[in-house]
Amino acid sequence: MSIRRIVVAPSGFKESLSAPQTASAISAGIERVLPDTAVQSLPLVDGGEGSAAALAEATGGHLVPVRVTGPVGEPVNSHYALLGGPGPRTAMVEMAAAAGLSLVPRDLRDPGATTSFGVGELISAALDAGVDRILVGCGDSGICDGGAGALQALGARITDAMGRPVGFGGAALADVEAVDLSGLDGRIVGTDIRLAVNQHNVLCGERGVARVFGPQKGATPAQVELLSSAMERWAKVIERDLHRDLRDAPGSGASGGLGAGLAAGLGAALLPRFEVMFEHVDIAGAIADADLVFTGEGSIDFQTPRGKIPAEVARIASAHRVPVVALAGTIGTDAHLNYATGIDAIASILPSPLALDDALGRAAEYLTDAAERTMRLLLVGRALA
Amino acid sequence: MSIRRIVVAPSGFKESLSAPQTASAISAGIERVLPDTAVQSLPLVDGGEGSAAALAEATGGHLVPVRVTGPVGEPVNSHYALLGGPGPRTAMVEMAAAAGLSLVPRDLRDPGATTSFGVGELISAALDAGVDRILVGCGDSGICDGGAGALQALGARITDAMGRPVGFGGAALADVEAVDLSGLDGRIVGTDIRLAVNQHNVLCGERGVARVFGPQKGATPAQVELLSSAMERWAKVIERDLHRDLRDAPGSGASGGLGAGLAAGLGAALLPRFEVMFEHVDIAGAIADADLVFTGEGSIDFQTPRGKIPAEVARIASAHRVPVVALAGTIGTDAHLNYATGIDAIASILPSPLALDDALGRAAEYLTDAAERTMRLLLVGRALA
Repeated sequence: MSIRRIVVAPSGFKESLSAPQTASAISAGIERVLPDTAVQSLPLVDGGEGSAAALAEATGGHLVPVRVTGPVGEPVNSHYALLGGPGPRTAMVEMAAAAGLSLVPRDLRDPGATTSFGVGELISAALDAGVDRILVGCGDSGICDGGAGALQALGARITDAMGRPVGFGGAALADVEAVDLSGLDGRIVGTDIRLAVNQHNVLCGERGVARVFGPQKGATPAQVELLSSAMERWAKVIERDLHRDLRDAPGSGASGGLGAGLAAGLGAALLPRFEVMFEHVDIAGAIADADLVFTGEGSIDFQTPRGKIPAEVARIASAHRVPVVALAGTIGTDAHLNYATGIDAIASILPSPLALDDALGRAAEYLTDAAERTMRLLLVGRALA
Repeated sequence: MSIRRIVVAPSGFKESLSAPQTASAISAGIERVLPDTAVQSLPLVDGGEGSAAALAEATGGHLVPVRVTGPVGEPVNSHYALLGGPGPRTAMVEMAAAAGLSLVPRDLRDPGATTSFGVGELISAALDAGVDRILVGCGDSGICDGGAGALQALGARITDAMGRPVGFGGAALADVEAVDLSGLDGRIVGTDIRLAVNQHNVLCGERGVARVFGPQKGATPAQVELLSSAMERWAKVIERDLHRDLRDAPGSGASGGLGAGLAAGLGAALLPRFEVMFEHVDIAGAIADADLVFTGEGSIDFQTPRGKIPAEVARIASAHRVPVVALAGTIGTDAHLNYATGIDAIASILPSPLALDDALGRAAEYLTDAAERTMRLLLVGRALA
């Protein structure tokens, strides 16, 4: 049988290539071996860094630049996307574009101090554009303020026992006493706000956002404990004043608790991120029509099956009985767990022992070469039949 | 079609795994995926480091320990192999076991000063054992003395214009004036001595051994020029006194010119190394009966097609129309040239960015995992048919 059609549906490679760049590097390698096969690029994003740009491109929309308050309180150049395509007029706000970890200088990485205020400003800017729906992509955040900053930017009053507004950052929520939405931007009510979340992330408890993600955002063990109890207190205030118990609601811990804040304060829906992000890309349709799927991510490991793009792609492809191979820069701990998701084989993109920085700098070249090598192996296999 | 039989015929991975270790690591990975397929290990050596041990093992022979003069003049523990199997009683002398680069301390790496004397001592020890044939494996040498040291060890008198014996090392040959074999060990004449050489290596000229290999053995540019003219002078003396012009004879430059010295002084045959080494391993027979061949080497690059083991394996497999995949720790410059030799696909064994030392230390684990991943890719490819 000839290979008629290959779908290339990777994530981006963190810190080196966006999803579209990844897809095009892989496609180039396949085309070296199979110049006459139809190769469809289907770059996928999960709501994290780069998602607004990728989704604007995928839908024929565009980015709108906005200057907002960054995670450490300094102004940053940010943007949201106005999506193209049919359906309701939709904006996508990528939280990482206003409060992402990469916007926090290394020497200021204290998730007790950083704020999601700019995310609220992006939502406000999207409301100015008169959209019917706002998608908020979570992931790659550098904050842990339970979404309090974003609510403040949209007019919520969040105060301590003395009635004073709490300051920026999750640590300030250790003293939170009340939340008052009477001053909230009136346009929120008429707008369909959907958060694209990883539903495994919850606000409080042992698997709460402070404990799970605090350390990688720069929190010391003591700060993790402080933040964890601040989130607990914030959850109590939300429950009393806004009548929502979000402590362990699926996705409440998304992006440093932004999920909880926007769900409680804006009535936003917390939806599985791929349900939200893939609504604008007909991935199932493309895969159903393919003979083979290439996917990939910077790292393939035990976390991949827990809601990362390659595993999602594999689940869809499995349902259509289409084989999936994954390319990775790092094949990490317990990568074999991915075989159960429908990833049939994994290949390394690294041509030689080298430092991480070198790998990041030459990722496109290595991906193309690895896709070529992988395609050659597949053809050897085909000839064995 | 089921995959009935796989042959695993790799080289060793330099500085980490011997050929038998490499073959067994690859086989383990294949067996994880295809537990019911016959996997035949056929570790291959080219005459260089580790060859005596591997060939002893492959033939049911054993190693004989010998203490000899090392390349810098200090005594070293060395060995030769007495091979098992039918045919003439055969010893294998691995020149690297007496004069290999790894026996030269880094701060003494001057190929103008190091000697092949110990190689002659190993030959003498093999003669003591009463063998009919001596195979001399070349490769991985740390010397460039034109084999003068080895001849001296066997009784040749090599002298300068004053009639004094020249000292150790290639640089001393800049003053060589005469070679006299009248004192040579009398047992040489009745013994079939065969050098396993890379026939691309020649003694003199622009592609001569001093220029091509001097730098990697530690020679400065000035030392390369000196050594190059010393080899030229040695060739002239050999031509006048021993009536052989070996300047650019195929293999005359093998192992720092050991090829020329032993050909001229002992009447040794300079044979393609795989012809010599594979005589004791029925590689063609095994491959002809296989559905698939795995090979591999530490590095697969533009040098591989020039007489490295994976390319030799691929040539044999091509002739029998058996597909070949190669595993490599480094996929180097112009690795694609190998596709023309019959290697159908190449896979990287590295699971992540890492330093060379880490890669060397964990090579067996990485090889096994990579063989498993590669086998999975082949099965995906087979399912595409």
